[in-house]
Amino acid sequence: MQLGLSVSDSDVSSFTPLVVLELADDTKAEAITWLLNRIRGKQQNGGAELLVDQLLFPAQDGQKSNPNVFVVGSTLQRLLKGAEDVGLFKEFQDGTMRGFTYANRESFKDFYGDGEGFLSDAECQYIIKHELDTLRAKNEEHVPGYPKVKLYPGKSVVRRLQSKGVLVQYFPLHNKEDLKRLSFSWYKKIKLYFQPLDDIRHYFGEGLALYFGFLEYFTFALVPMALIGIPYYLFDWENYDKYVLFAVFNLVWSTVFLEVWKRCTYGWGTLSRKKAFEEPRAGFHGALGFNPITGREEPVYPSSKRQLRIYLVSVPFVLLCLYLSFYVMMVYFDMENWAISIYNENPNVATGILLFVPSIIYAVVIEIMNLLYRYAAEFLTNWGEPEILLSNHLYLYSFNFVNCFASLFYIAFVMQDMVLLRQSLATLLITSQILNQVMEAFLPYWLQRRRNKKVHKRMRRMMGDKELPLLEQVQLETEMNTYLGTFDDYLEQFLLFGYVSLFSCVYPLAAVLVVLNNITEVYSDAFKMCHVFKRPFSEPAANIGVWQLAFETMSIIAVVTNCALIGLSSQVKAYFPESETEMILIVVAIEHVLLAFKFILAFVIPDVPKHIQVKLAKLEFDSLEALKKRVSTHLYMCTYLQHANRKCDHLYDRPCQKVLQCK
Amino acid sequence: MQLGLSVSDSDVSSFTPLVVLELADDTKAEAITWLLNRIRGKQQNGGAELLVDQLLFPAQDGQKSNPNVFVVGSTLQRLLKGAEDVGLFKEFQDGTMRGFTYANRESFKDFYGDGEGFLSDAECQYIIKHELDTLRAKNEEHVPGYPKVKLYPGKSVVRRLQSKGVLVQYFPLHNKEDLKRLSFSWYKKIKLYFQPLDDIRHYFGEGLALYFGFLEYFTFALVPMALIGIPYYLFDWENYDKYVLFAVFNLVWSTVFLEVWKRCTYGWGTLSRKKAFEEPRAGFHGALGFNPITGREEPVYPSSKRQLRIYLVSVPFVLLCLYLSFYVMMVYFDMENWAISIYNENPNVATGILLFVPSIIYAVVIEIMNLLYRYAAEFLTNWGEPEILLSNHLYLYSFNFVNCFASLFYIAFVMQDMVLLRQSLATLLITSQILNQVMEAFLPYWLQRRRNKKVHKRMRRMMGDKELPLLEQVQLETEMNTYLGTFDDYLEQFLLFGYVSLFSCVYPLAAVLVVLNNITEVYSDAFKMCHVFKRPFSEPAANIGVWQLAFETMSIIAVVTNCALIGLSSQVKAYFPESETEMILIVVAIEHVLLAFKFILAFVIPDVPKHIQVKLAKLEFDSLEALKKRVSTHLYMCTYLQHANRKCDHLYDRPCQKVLQCK
Repeated sequence: MQLGLSVSDSDVSSFTPLVVLELADDTKAEAITWLLNRIRGKQQNGGAELLVDQLLFPAQDGQKSNPNVFVVGSTLQRLLKGAEDVGLFKEFQDGTMRGFTYANRESFKDFYGDGEGFLSDAECQYIIKHELDTLRAKNEEHVPGYPKVKLYPGKSVVRRLQSKGVLVQYFPLHNKEDLKRLSFSWYKKIKLYFQPLDDIRHYFGEGLALYFGFLEYFTFALVPMALIGIPYYLFDWENYDKYVLFAVFNLVWSTVFLEVWKRCTYGWGTLSRKKAFEEPRAGFHGALGFNPITGREEPVYPSSKRQLRIYLVSVPFVLLCLYLSFYVMMVYFDMENWAISIYNENPNVATGILLFVPSIIYAVVIEIMNLLYRYAAEFLTNWGEPEILLSNHLYLYSFNFVNCFASLFYIAFVMQDMVLLRQSLATLLITSQILNQVMEAFLPYWLQRRRNKKVHKRMRRMMGDKELPLLEQVQLETEMNTYLGTFDDYLEQFLLFGYVSLFSCVYPLAAVLVVLNNITEVYSDAFKMCHVFKRPFSEPAANIGVWQLAFETMSIIAVVTNCALIGLSSQVKAYFPESETEMILIVVAIEHVLLAFKFILAFVIPDVPKHIQVKLAKLEFDSLEALKKRVSTHLYMCTYLQHANRKCDHLYDRPCQKVLQCK
Repeated sequence: MQLGLSVSDSDVSSFTPLVVLELADDTKAEAITWLLNRIRGKQQNGGAELLVDQLLFPAQDGQKSNPNVFVVGSTLQRLLKGAEDVGLFKEFQDGTMRGFTYANRESFKDFYGDGEGFLSDAECQYIIKHELDTLRAKNEEHVPGYPKVKLYPGKSVVRRLQSKGVLVQYFPLHNKEDLKRLSFSWYKKIKLYFQPLDDIRHYFGEGLALYFGFLEYFTFALVPMALIGIPYYLFDWENYDKYVLFAVFNLVWSTVFLEVWKRCTYGWGTLSRKKAFEEPRAGFHGALGFNPITGREEPVYPSSKRQLRIYLVSVPFVLLCLYLSFYVMMVYFDMENWAISIYNENPNVATGILLFVPSIIYAVVIEIMNLLYRYAAEFLTNWGEPEILLSNHLYLYSFNFVNCFASLFYIAFVMQDMVLLRQSLATLLITSQILNQVMEAFLPYWLQRRRNKKVHKRMRRMMGDKELPLLEQVQLETEMNTYLGTFDDYLEQFLLFGYVSLFSCVYPLAAVLVVLNNITEVYSDAFKMCHVFKRPFSEPAANIGVWQLAFETMSIIAVVTNCALIGLSSQVKAYFPESETEMILIVVAIEHVLLAFKFILAFVIPDVPKHIQVKLAKLEFDSLEALKKRVSTHLYMCTYLQHANRKCDHLYDRPCQKVLQCK
């Protein structure tokens, strides 16, 4: 809650600025006045009751800064009430996690005095975002000054302004001091211990902290595999058949890995936060209706129309992309054959290097296709809509999976060429890792540095020696890139997990490469979060969600793939010199036993650890008891006040019941 | 609530008798007085606050009736309060299902006046059972008159008396008029429509109604299979290879069957009743501790000891039984070979019949072994204990599965003898069906009739022409057998499902036999519930529970089995005359696709239909809101009463909070 700016910038803003709001520089004055009034307005009148101030940049000779930049803050009381609106879960006195309520704020742990320091920066900014998002149109027909930007009662004003380009962006401000402290403990010193996950969570919110926790866990889990992989690789360099043991190890590892993680994540964060009870997302289009659960009036989206759009747009699009992907794969095999024929005609160092060129080109093309698919999918469907999101994610996994692994499966099981498989796997893995690191961190960093220098120079020119850190900070952060969420980061880990669990038995160095990649990934991701991107709004999360399912599906595919690779090995075939049929039947039987074992394991190990189960059950019990008690108390009070000849209508928000009608 | 007895029996009992309690006929008078006082005692003093009367049978010349038979009833108010204790879910005014509370009873649907007729008979009896079961020892050290029957504070008195033989039994009374009406609409008329499931639920409770619902659904689902099976059987009598199509049909059918059922069951009954919040079962042994969820003091069972017992007793026992089962199977194959050799030496009608004898003997032995295993398992472990129950059930499924199907799997996949498979399947199925019907319904019915006549004669002798229907009814029902729950009935259906889904492609008449069996099963089960067994206490249930999982596991095994049978068929083999390997690989690939499809289907079809999801979410939202409001109201009231200078300690069950301490 204490940003280190409020003192030196008292001339700029009278409150602690938390969120920046940038309107287009040609926004009409009446629209600005109207929006500010709505943001400042009382909640009873449909306002957000927040504090907002304009940032006035000094006039400048050459370039003109955008004059319509605003900072939004809030009083402490408003934030605490907002915490109840968003359904924030905080630790109660008795150690359980409970939905925060303003009325019994004193019963929560770490609440002292007026509540200063009770909410973290990230939480305050999340609350302000929520309040801005849920600013809904009342009876205005259009945005003042913009007769064409129609408003519909109940629809989010902010999202409407954003989609029409009036609102350019809004984002939370970094807290420079906290950020310096965090980045020091996170990546600035060489260390042997873990990442400061609690600090990350405090600063960036749970969603991001979970991602970094998962990245760390995955990397550590890969270490034993990497350690086994090195001697395997060194001593069996040319013996592709000794991989049976490694395949068995792969099988066990990928199952245990995910089960342990599932149990570890619980206990994290917003334990039983009910997504369904939130206000609808601001981006929701559609007519106004009643939410059947909360009874609140809110925009609803017709379900049949949504279904139709999925099937008419998404499915053909995915099929087309898959066809393209297969076509590219076939081109790659042609190139591969061409390279081999050249090498065979004239084997020397140059043609030896040429052998790797098709794989490298293919890897680059795969990365480009993954990117293109991502942007096309975002363009074609309303990406942010919660119910579409899941199916979009499913298509995205499937496409990326096919795109990355189709060639490997083809080489392994149709061509049955283990040498080519190893070479192709190694090239794909290394190329994609290098590309990713460049695209994700170094390129944005380089662009960012150039921009920073420019802004800094401009600010110096503008203000001479005056120290106006807030103005400079806002100016800088406004021009930073926006972080698009953890999706792409998880997707990268998902594909790496695929390379390791599916095929690493033929190329044991894969695990080593992934470990090395992930160690640099921690640093580059940390760096990009702190210095390359705008601070993201925190998203509450209790687990890695659909990714758990995605990783588990991959581990099932890994069982099948590894069993098939074992069946193909000449070492195993040597045991059954006479009957290939018998060998296949035995391998299939073992595979079935392993799959059955996996499902039994998933069934036997409870997803939620015992102590969390008890906590959840207790919370549920308490609220059911409260529901019972609530009505009793009400009745009791009515009788009581009836005897005392007082009115009780205002004491309680429910009308009295028939029998005990109050006077 | 209106039993048809109260008028004519006003001399016997002053209230509507609902439950019969039979103590041993030599029970000491002080123990009886103590127990009756506890049952009648106020709840504040740890009593059950129920009504109880002794049934006095007239003195008799020859045989002496047990004098210690009591009938238990209750006032309406006590029942309604008890409904809250057991957490009964009833329909609220707004159509949702909610936990009943006495305080807001008026807001529930169908509650008129003082609540007469609001609770069904079955519910009243369930409430009385619950209140009796939760009568706990206070500071008594032993049962009065029985220094050896020690009592431990907090342990269930009734269960203690029952385990020591002082309490012989307690059971709910039939309601003759309702029973007559129910049995008429259920099985006494030949009809083309469905069973009266709502009436069954009203009379016997949800658990049993769900069983009959499932039986009906399963039977109807089998009809298309039976219809396809008859021509298959007639026109391909000697062609065992034409079963590929039938196997494919089996695959699809068994998946669709279970998915549809899963969706149908929701919306039934005690929608979101929380098992975890119930009082512990009366049979729970162990020391006193605090339930971490409800905060109530109750007996707890040390978990490590329980685990140890499972592994040291149950696992070796199951292994021993499995060994025995395999041994018997081997003996059966010897007998089979012996019968075939005799038939081959001298083929005539007598030796032709002899061919079926080993299968019949084996089928009978399997049924006996299943029974023996059931009783031994019940004896060895504390069957009723909830946490052991699940693992016991798992062992029981597994044992029954192996016992019934091991020989069929052996014949199909090791001996690959489709003729013997068909013969063995047919004999097993028919023999077990006949045995089951005899053991389950006709034998108990015959025994019951004999007893009824005797009791009737005795009563006539005893009382001359006096009409004392209650006495006679209690006398009759006391001697009836006890229904041990739906477990055995489900198990039978589970095994039938196995026969049909696993192997019916080689013997298409299996489905026809099962349909015929189930039609008679509905009638004989209905008859045995109404006239052979004592009325059972109703058990609340929202779905068929572990059986859903058991049936789903079976349908997965069915996919694997049917694919393997397809691979074995000479019809399929004929397509791949050169490469057996290729054929196997294709069959395995198809099997994997089918299994993947099954899991995707289970994932895509939501378990809980949309409208139920909304209902559940609404209930949860309401209680969370209530939890928030509860604290607010409390604070508000404190302030209010503080101003009015009144004490509020008694008004509410929570101490006031620090800030707003009441005077």
